[in-house]
Amino acid sequence: MIIVMESTATKDDIQAVVDKIKGMGLDVHLSSGKERTIIGVIGDEAEVRTKPLSIYKGVEKVMAILQPFKLVSTEFKKERSIIDVDGVRFGGNLIPIIAGPCSVETEEGLLDVAYKVKAAGASLIRGGAFKPRTSPYSFQGLGEEGLKILKRVKQKTGLRVVTELMDTRDLEMMLPYADMLQIGTRNMQNFNLLKEVGKVNKPILLKRGMSATIKEFLMSAEYILSQGNHNVILCERGIRTFSDVTRNTADISAIPVVHSLSHLPIIFDPSHAVGIWKYISPISLAAIAAGADGLIIEVHSNPKEAISDGEQSLKPETFKSLMRDIKPIARALGRTLE
Amino acid sequence: MIIVMESTATKDDIQAVVDKIKGMGLDVHLSSGKERTIIGVIGDEAEVRTKPLSIYKGVEKVMAILQPFKLVSTEFKKERSIIDVDGVRFGGNLIPIIAGPCSVETEEGLLDVAYKVKAAGASLIRGGAFKPRTSPYSFQGLGEEGLKILKRVKQKTGLRVVTELMDTRDLEMMLPYADMLQIGTRNMQNFNLLKEVGKVNKPILLKRGMSATIKEFLMSAEYILSQGNHNVILCERGIRTFSDVTRNTADISAIPVVHSLSHLPIIFDPSHAVGIWKYISPISLAAIAAGADGLIIEVHSNPKEAISDGEQSLKPETFKSLMRDIKPIARALGRTLE
Amino acid sequence: MIIVMESTATKDDIQAVVDKIKGMGLDVHLSSGKERTIIGVIGDEAEVRTKPLSIYKGVEKVMAILQPFKLVSTEFKKERSIIDVDGVRFGGNLIPIIAGPCSVETEEGLLDVAYKVKAAGASLIRGGAFKPRTSPYSFQGLGEEGLKILKRVKQKTGLRVVTELMDTRDLEMMLPYADMLQIGTRNMQNFNLLKEVGKVNKPILLKRGMSATIKEFLMSAEYILSQGNHNVILCERGIRTFSDVTRNTADISAIPVVHSLSHLPIIFDPSHAVGIWKYISPISLAAIAAGADGLIIEVHSNPKEAISDGEQSLKPETFKSLMRDIKPIARALGRTLE
Amino acid sequence: MIIVMESTATKDDIQAVVDKIKGMGLDVHLSSGKERTIIGVIGDEAEVRTKPLSIYKGVEKVMAILQPFKLVSTEFKKERSIIDVDGVRFGGNLIPIIAGPCSVETEEGLLDVAYKVKAAGASLIRGGAFKPRTSPYSFQGLGEEGLKILKRVKQKTGLRVVTELMDTRDLEMMLPYADMLQIGTRNMQNFNLLKEVGKVNKPILLKRGMSATIKEFLMSAEYILSQGNHNVILCERGIRTFSDVTRNTADISAIPVVHSLSHLPIIFDPSHAVGIWKYISPISLAAIAAGADGLIIEVHSNPKEAISDGEQSLKPETFKSLMRDIKPIARALGRTLE
Repeated sequence: MIIVMESTATKDDIQAVVDKIKGMGLDVHLSSGKERTIIGVIGDEAEVRTKPLSIYKGVEKVMAILQPFKLVSTEFKKERSIIDVDGVRFGGNLIPIIAGPCSVETEEGLLDVAYKVKAAGASLIRGGAFKPRTSPYSFQGLGEEGLKILKRVKQKTGLRVVTELMDTRDLEMMLPYADMLQIGTRNMQNFNLLKEVGKVNKPILLKRGMSATIKEFLMSAEYILSQGNHNVILCERGIRTFSDVTRNTADISAIPVVHSLSHLPIIFDPSHAVGIWKYISPISLAAIAAGADGLIIEVHSNPKEAISDGEQSLKPETFKSLMRDIKPIARALGRTLE
Repeated sequence: MIIVMESTATKDDIQAVVDKIKGMGLDVHLSSGKERTIIGVIGDEAEVRTKPLSIYKGVEKVMAILQPFKLVSTEFKKERSIIDVDGVRFGGNLIPIIAGPCSVETEEGLLDVAYKVKAAGASLIRGGAFKPRTSPYSFQGLGEEGLKILKRVKQKTGLRVVTELMDTRDLEMMLPYADMLQIGTRNMQNFNLLKEVGKVNKPILLKRGMSATIKEFLMSAEYILSQGNHNVILCERGIRTFSDVTRNTADISAIPVVHSLSHLPIIFDPSHAVGIWKYISPISLAAIAAGADGLIIEVHSNPKEAISDGEQSLKPETFKSLMRDIKPIARALGRTLE
Repeated sequence: MIIVMESTATKDDIQAVVDKIKGMGLDVHLSSGKERTIIGVIGDEAEVRTKPLSIYKGVEKVMAILQPFKLVSTEFKKERSIIDVDGVRFGGNLIPIIAGPCSVETEEGLLDVAYKVKAAGASLIRGGAFKPRTSPYSFQGLGEEGLKILKRVKQKTGLRVVTELMDTRDLEMMLPYADMLQIGTRNMQNFNLLKEVGKVNKPILLKRGMSATIKEFLMSAEYILSQGNHNVILCERGIRTFSDVTRNTADISAIPVVHSLSHLPIIFDPSHAVGIWKYISPISLAAIAAGADGLIIEVHSNPKEAISDGEQSLKPETFKSLMRDIKPIARALGRTLE
Repeated sequence: MIIVMESTATKDDIQAVVDKIKGMGLDVHLSSGKERTIIGVIGDEAEVRTKPLSIYKGVEKVMAILQPFKLVSTEFKKERSIIDVDGVRFGGNLIPIIAGPCSVETEEGLLDVAYKVKAAGASLIRGGAFKPRTSPYSFQGLGEEGLKILKRVKQKTGLRVVTELMDTRDLEMMLPYADMLQIGTRNMQNFNLLKEVGKVNKPILLKRGMSATIKEFLMSAEYILSQGNHNVILCERGIRTFSDVTRNTADISAIPVVHSLSHLPIIFDPSHAVGIWKYISPISLAAIAAGADGLIIEVHSNPKEAISDGEQSLKPETFKSLMRDIKPIARALGRTLE
């Protein structure tokens, strides 16, 4: 921690800050320049971080030196983490693909799309049983019945199941059905939910909040790891900006940035990032080229009849040709899809 | 709902969309211009809204005509709602002020600040017993013990209690302690939480999400009203933008915009909006001048020792002089503080 | 300037940075903490600022200590600047109001609105002769003929003239017509234009860019002052954010922030900030309450027939009642409108 | 154009809008639904677009049906435009690469980097002779001397020259030196500059404004085309968002979006998009995978000594290995680099 004093700060102002820091059992390092005195804190920054030093008289600004996250950082763990989702490994050479409808609607529908995405090369199926819908009047998901359908589809196809958890009360019930639990965008900072999933032995797919900085995103992952569950896969899904031609703005550079700050794998959700089916293929290729460790894509057998997110769902045949287009790009990076 | 067809759309393309709409029991109105055919939907837009009409062949864009919210709208209820929080009325001529520390820390500390803000004119005390903290290593609140302290402070000072609910599992327990439950920024789209507080008989203070549009904000309020609880007070608390000199960007124009779209009261949180104590007074005056129905301000007897948000907390004496400055502005608008 | 080294930086890495800084004739201050070595630069930061120290091996981040602007800063000049626009003084107790149409359309129209806004208390008239229009097919302004109209309106009404300069080639020609030259939002970083207006003896109204940070805004003012012209009035006019209910997001907190960083006056443009006439009055009151040193408002005798910006223009009678509403708020702050 | 009336609009309100539109020589189409009357305008929307219909009594909102741009649209010209820059063709199968330093510094330095980027596969050299710098105290470019250096480097290496034009007064002078003129981010809406370059016979590289929507971006290109110069290449270079880990947020989805709306080529500038050299390779690969028609990359022989943008400049050897990595991705899309 560095504290920059104003040019008008008095000796007493400086001493008051120094005393405060020493009172916390830390040491300081003073540097008196021509224009400013700068106080460096020696010792564990975490302790000082929460103190409102900026309100001391004569303080101009307080600058943190260290990142606030630990367990998720490359400094804590140098080698990239491999997260195993019932045998499918994220974070290594393989780029697993997750596909399926926005919501679980019917067993026949889900099974149909499951067979098709599996044939095209997907390893996991997605599908919401509990849906976070902006409107209280929209379809809210089938609930546990949806989870049972997912389970049966897994038994038939072998596709691993990823589904969203929205409420701490549902966690226990959901564990037997899901191979990976998704924490959605709107719950990225639902800290109680993060703590609970930090206590179970199940991979967690953590989606970036709509306007979360990378630091906040990694701090949310830190919540989960801090409770003992180190099986976290991050997911970039577009951020909210002024731009109005796509549903969100795909922040592709988040992929290499996360790779440089954290050992956790990061996958990409093109469907929510752009929100319009025709842009999903080019942006998926871009994410793979930038180093994404996987994709999660909405696919529906008949998007026109989808109960939710039809406008951003691929038809199985478009998904199939996207998978074909991804392959040579993955190969160019020395990676594989299956 | 208006569907604009592309200039190259064929008769069959148009017919397919018309058939789809008629199949939903609605009627259409065709308008064939020089450059485009436009299809107007006659009947309840809500039904069409969720259908992915934009993916039909030949469709250029789909434009909604109506707002998606109902119960919160001025169209549903013309006169402004008055929300009564244990006798303190929000939404009328009175501008109630809520003040207090970020977190409940100790009973003596809270009582001290409570007496001071009451003397300065506040009607309610704020203070978190459960705290949404970005870092898992930060102080997470005193829990139920904090609620008991709040209750005792109310008994001694008469100040009504506002405190944040973060988890559906805590709702029942919290009801006897709080006069108003706050749903925080990070939970504005925690839909399960919204539904639960929609079922209780207790005023709800709903804070705007960090990057929520006004429409999404009102839809979250709609969730609460749709379950039967019409006692909702909205709170603007700054939005996330590129601007980097304040913690958030105070969206003051949200106040008159909400007043024109909804009958619900809207208050303003200057502390989180700007995040730096010295800008809190001018932005508070601005919010009052723009028509805010109340303020919620962080005040701490000794901000330097606050466990959280010290840098944005006012000292009791600064709060007192702010209250003095607000009065003539409230009066200029024909309103009062007490 | 503070340079934070990575935890893995070697002695040689550190030495290379130190050598680089010493090679520039500056001195360093080393602080070797438990986790990081930190290098403080002693001497003029401006010189180091442009060097890409962040790319040296082992460097984690480079943090500036000082603000990059000088002449505009409160550190350079403590007392608030008063800018005199042909006798009307901005930055003091008086809050001058600028009003008038978006574009100069006809002499009769302009004269009509000029008499009305003057009667309501305005001191300056605005009106574009050169218009920055998003579309090449829109009305581009009357050019010099518009300036002549403005001049004649000034002669008849006494209102001072503010009008926009868009091109370095027009500067000389415009000087005799304008009492203050406006640099528009889209030209806030048209550095050649800034340099040219820095060389003339005429007050400049500098509007904030649509997505300019406060630092960039002040740096653009610094461009003008650095050429010798210290008569700059800043203007906040809304920033671009995700919010979609108003044309821009009025950044009211920019007013106290600028007051704390700079001695220059700052006025507010409610018309472009919100873009919808019915929100102009509440947001204008908010700006005054936050300390704005003036307002610039679009007023048109018949907004329905305005060639540009009709939807955000006030009618003269609405302007008159807004002026009436502002007065008690200005008075509450110890300021006056006339 | 569609005008939606409020539910409370009277017959007279509706008639006033209808009369206004008919008075402009256009026709209307009325659709009276259960909840709203909707007025469709029949005829040329461009005329109505600038009229402030939204302020008529009883009007709820006005919705445009058509895009405001014409000449740049795929509707105007179906086949993709090929822009020829002195023999190098943008917009076809070839993906030309532009490389070079931020600013022209010395002839030896430029020549050195020119030979190296050419050997790695670049076809054009970039380098600013006039530099838009945020600070008036920063290096502002060598001016015409820089242009002469660029010309000589072209003569020796064959690399075509791209350089930035900042001022209408410099246009004539610059024409003989540049093969393509760049309009920078800060001048995207410098409409006078756009009009002037619209009158010359020289390819224009138009960079997207920092917070420009795609519509505004295309409208700026429309300015150039509307004056007769159809040789425009667009350039995505990152947009300003809340995200703080990269200099800007690379909006990769803008590439397929522009391809769907316009026939003009669009290239990508990774250097300004991310601003940190180590993220330039992955984001460049992403842009190519998303369909970019070229790249413009900052390369400097010795970034540590660069006068500007050193932190985002690639060394020649990093550029060379990036070129090697791009090739298989271009090939996967059926395109080539040379």
